[in-house]
Amino acid sequence: MSFVEKVTTAGSKDYVDPSQRIAVFDNDGTLWAEQPVYFQALFLLDRIKQLSPKHPEWAEQEPFATVLRGEPEKILSADEKSLVALAMATHGNLTDDEFKIVVRDWLKSARHPQTGLPFTEMVYQPMLELLAYLRAEHFKTFIVSGGGIDFIRVFAEETYGIPPEQVVGTRNKAKYEIRDGTPVIVKLPELDFIDDGPGKPAGIHLHIGRRPIFAAGNSDGDYQMLDWTTSSEGARFGMILHHNDEDREFAYDRNSSIGKLDKAWTDAETKYWTVVDIKSDWKTIFPTSSSK
Amino acid sequence: MSFVEKVTTAGSKDYVDPSQRIAVFDNDGTLWAEQPVYFQALFLLDRIKQLSPKHPEWAEQEPFATVLRGEPEKILSADEKSLVALAMATHGNLTDDEFKIVVRDWLKSARHPQTGLPFTEMVYQPMLELLAYLRAEHFKTFIVSGGGIDFIRVFAEETYGIPPEQVVGTRNKAKYEIRDGTPVIVKLPELDFIDDGPGKPAGIHLHIGRRPIFAAGNSDGDYQMLDWTTSSEGARFGMILHHNDEDREFAYDRNSSIGKLDKAWTDAETKYWTVVDIKSDWKTIFPTSSSK
Ligand SMILES: [Ca+2]
Ligand SMILES: [Ca+2]
Repeated sequence: MSFVEKVTTAGSKDYVDPSQRIAVFDNDGTLWAEQPVYFQALFLLDRIKQLSPKHPEWAEQEPFATVLRGEPEKILSADEKSLVALAMATHGNLTDDEFKIVVRDWLKSARHPQTGLPFTEMVYQPMLELLAYLRAEHFKTFIVSGGGIDFIRVFAEETYGIPPEQVVGTRNKAKYEIRDGTPVIVKLPELDFIDDGPGKPAGIHLHIGRRPIFAAGNSDGDYQMLDWTTSSEGARFGMILHHNDEDREFAYDRNSSIGKLDKAWTDAETKYWTVVDIKSDWKTIFPTSSSK
Repeated sequence: MSFVEKVTTAGSKDYVDPSQRIAVFDNDGTLWAEQPVYFQALFLLDRIKQLSPKHPEWAEQEPFATVLRGEPEKILSADEKSLVALAMATHGNLTDDEFKIVVRDWLKSARHPQTGLPFTEMVYQPMLELLAYLRAEHFKTFIVSGGGIDFIRVFAEETYGIPPEQVVGTRNKAKYEIRDGTPVIVKLPELDFIDDGPGKPAGIHLHIGRRPIFAAGNSDGDYQMLDWTTSSEGARFGMILHHNDEDREFAYDRNSSIGKLDKAWTDAETKYWTVVDIKSDWKTIFPTSSSK
């Protein structure tokens, strides 16, 4: 990849000091799959079912009732507010340590409805190789996701080699308190920040504090992150994955309710963003299996 | 230091994997000095004066009028609200890049009222050595400060070797927008989060995502960070600097309005926090001068 050569070759006019080699990656649809629905949404639904015996009132109360009736597609294709209500009900009031255990347990047992694979094996092999390549060239790699920051942190280090402090995401408010004499962090059932669209550059500003030189995404939710990354001086790289391989993975773009890729695709040429054509560019999709 | 040996020696029962070697440092009074007033407050006052020609209304409007009359001590010893009002007026509506330039220019020209030193030379030599020692032992070092995150980021990398993405602090809201056709991050005149007291563990949770094993501070504002860091399983280290050297630096503790050290000092023994007695423990204070 000539961009990486340019920025890492001493004496090159585009040389970038290692401290400035910041690379940001969207997660859903960029590092792991996101069809037929965001994997975190499946976690929420399973969690609702798990908690339902303690909440008999949910049987009559939306959006919980729909989930418990076994019609999760209705929720998932519905509005964002329902999803947020589910997330608040399931994430809130746990300590961060308790939440980590809940997510870790789920990741161990849950399987993708179509492939039967654990979700952490539905990561893209070429992207894992790209992460490793950039790190070998002294890039610092970050996730910048619309998904929940604490959810992603549970598996990002083992799965992608990205430590918790290099994960940026949507977050709840959290507070410090003493529980049973021990200091803990408690996740509150209140949304604090949505790391999507214009929230992505704002999240990067907050967590990283400088502009990346490399950004990868797959949907219009990455538009502002790509634009902000690539519109400054010096060598910059913007990458968009186009999911167009229905046989080996999934095919969706302009009309998809999940991972809609429309304006970012249209503007890719004038913005000099590289569009990866998964069907023809990727030999392998997932590490453990070459088809869905 | 036996703590570091314990956690870095393979086979030791307290061995900690390098990825978990997170060390957090307060800034004001821990990495650099904070007397007679927080250095960032001096920045705010200078900035008010610099901006005042464009704001004739400030001559009649508090807290600006007091600053412009040349009575900054009154403001600085006053309530936190006045300081926040000043900060909002001076930080708000700049892009992050513009703000960086303003801070960088100020740091170049401003001098400490008593020592005549640039503020970035009023850093503690023994703490610089501690940072370097911990990093050599594969600790990742972070600043966790009640001061402004974007203010500290301007000098933390050059001064302490701590990159922007490892700085946690008090922050304004910020938003992404297109200005003159270019994507920028704008700092809004609205406080988003105060990284002090119970805010410090909450800030660590947000930015780092795991509990540190080492924490250093100098005031009651670090109490919760120290408590949270040291109250979990395994080897942990909490350090408190006690400023008691009036000749070479400053002496202040239980009754100080800035950097008040009272409860954290009282509880240090039962919490097993190490209290550093600056007067007798430190041979050198500042890198370029051994006395104030
Ligand atoms: Ca995506
Ligand atoms: Ca302090």
